[in-house]
Amino acid sequence: MSSNTFHWIAFDADDTLWQNEALYREGRDRFREIVSKYNPQDGIEEYFHETEIRNIPYYGYGVMSFVLSMIEAAVDLTEGRIQAEDIQALIDLSKEMLTTEVTLFEGVPDLISSLSAAYPLMLITKGDLFHQQRKVEESGLGPYFKSVEVVSEKTADVYQEILDRHEVDVDRFVMVGNSIRSDIQPILELGGWAIHVSPHLSWDYEGGEIEGPLRERFREVERLEELPQTIRTLQQRNLSQ
Amino acid sequence: MSSNTFHWIAFDADDTLWQNEALYREGRDRFREIVSKYNPQDGIEEYFHETEIRNIPYYGYGVMSFVLSMIEAAVDLTEGRIQAEDIQALIDLSKEMLTTEVTLFEGVPDLISSLSAAYPLMLITKGDLFHQQRKVEESGLGPYFKSVEVVSEKTADVYQEILDRHEVDVDRFVMVGNSIRSDIQPILELGGWAIHVSPHLSWDYEGGEIEGPLRERFREVERLEELPQTIRTLQQRNLSQ
Repeated sequence: MSSNTFHWIAFDADDTLWQNEALYREGRDRFREIVSKYNPQDGIEEYFHETEIRNIPYYGYGVMSFVLSMIEAAVDLTEGRIQAEDIQALIDLSKEMLTTEVTLFEGVPDLISSLSAAYPLMLITKGDLFHQQRKVEESGLGPYFKSVEVVSEKTADVYQEILDRHEVDVDRFVMVGNSIRSDIQPILELGGWAIHVSPHLSWDYEGGEIEGPLRERFREVERLEELPQTIRTLQQRNLSQ
Repeated sequence: MSSNTFHWIAFDADDTLWQNEALYREGRDRFREIVSKYNPQDGIEEYFHETEIRNIPYYGYGVMSFVLSMIEAAVDLTEGRIQAEDIQALIDLSKEMLTTEVTLFEGVPDLISSLSAAYPLMLITKGDLFHQQRKVEESGLGPYFKSVEVVSEKTADVYQEILDRHEVDVDRFVMVGNSIRSDIQPILELGGWAIHVSPHLSWDYEGGEIEGPLRERFREVERLEELPQTIRTLQQRNLSQ
């Protein structure tokens, strides 16, 4: 085997292997319903989105961050008229979201199980440590991953630390995920390989563009079942370089 | 060197190396002040404590968990009379707590720096990933630790996974921390060594008793500066076994 054979395949989890954004969209719908009763000014979604982004430096990513931002935005949007029972409804929503069963995308167990026979697999997911660990356990996919990394942000520095710790050469590392900003861009910048999957919904904040020379190590697939073939194609490209 | 020489020294962080509980007590005081305005029935502290413990399976440990439990308990204790401005005060409190500067206990930088010259050091801390990482960075102690582990719970299984991953023999592993329940008991059960430090305040929930034979590998110190001597004493005991 050439030294350029892929060594590790890493996967994002939320909205790559299982549903996540669908749950957040339901949460946003509930929020809008609740706040609308108070006849707030226009722009509920926009105001909430701004609050969420502004609060990332405090709360990071995940359900607790989402719900704390909802409570804050509800107080503001209703100019303090929000009732305690509606605050309680948001708290209840957080518990529902945190205990919703994991819904894997179609074909995921077979895909992960067969890939794990060929490559060591890594899961790299961001958000609440506690909730992410619970989802990994519930998904039943845990045993297929040689390493599960829960991180608070997905920057090039964070990926580099993971690569160093596992002694992985980035030229032999492929990341698969639905977020251009978090899963794809930083890995391409480090000199790795990346495959964008967009099977379902993604949070707008996770968009982005891949430009110029970085595109050479990048592929997009519509459906997860195209992954094994796409990995083989990238592998050929890597071997021929 | 004998194979029984200690190999790793691990430290808890909150209330072992830096202040934490003091901040939470201030938070509880603010909560009591806010809720008291509504003439609730007695037992504010007890009700909040129960809410906090009941919510651990949802929210885990940390400031976000603490504040979500406060909001929930405030709604209940005031029978829904709590005003939005007071909910906002609790949200503000969470941001204050998350950005409060880390206050190291006296002598910590010298202690950690000198121990790091003799042993590989590990930091094992539980809570919000995002907040714990920020505190490690702010503390300036990061470079002295060969590994920083943020975990969602401190059970024997969680410690075992860390020991396995670092290929550490538990007989050569010492854990230092303020919590009998989280830092000491699980390590002693696994066959490791543990030193309890109680320099300042600890959360009641973290108490516990060390019984019978487990006490042989256990020491208590009042002040952090006693640690190097205590480690040497345990080391002698380990070598002579």
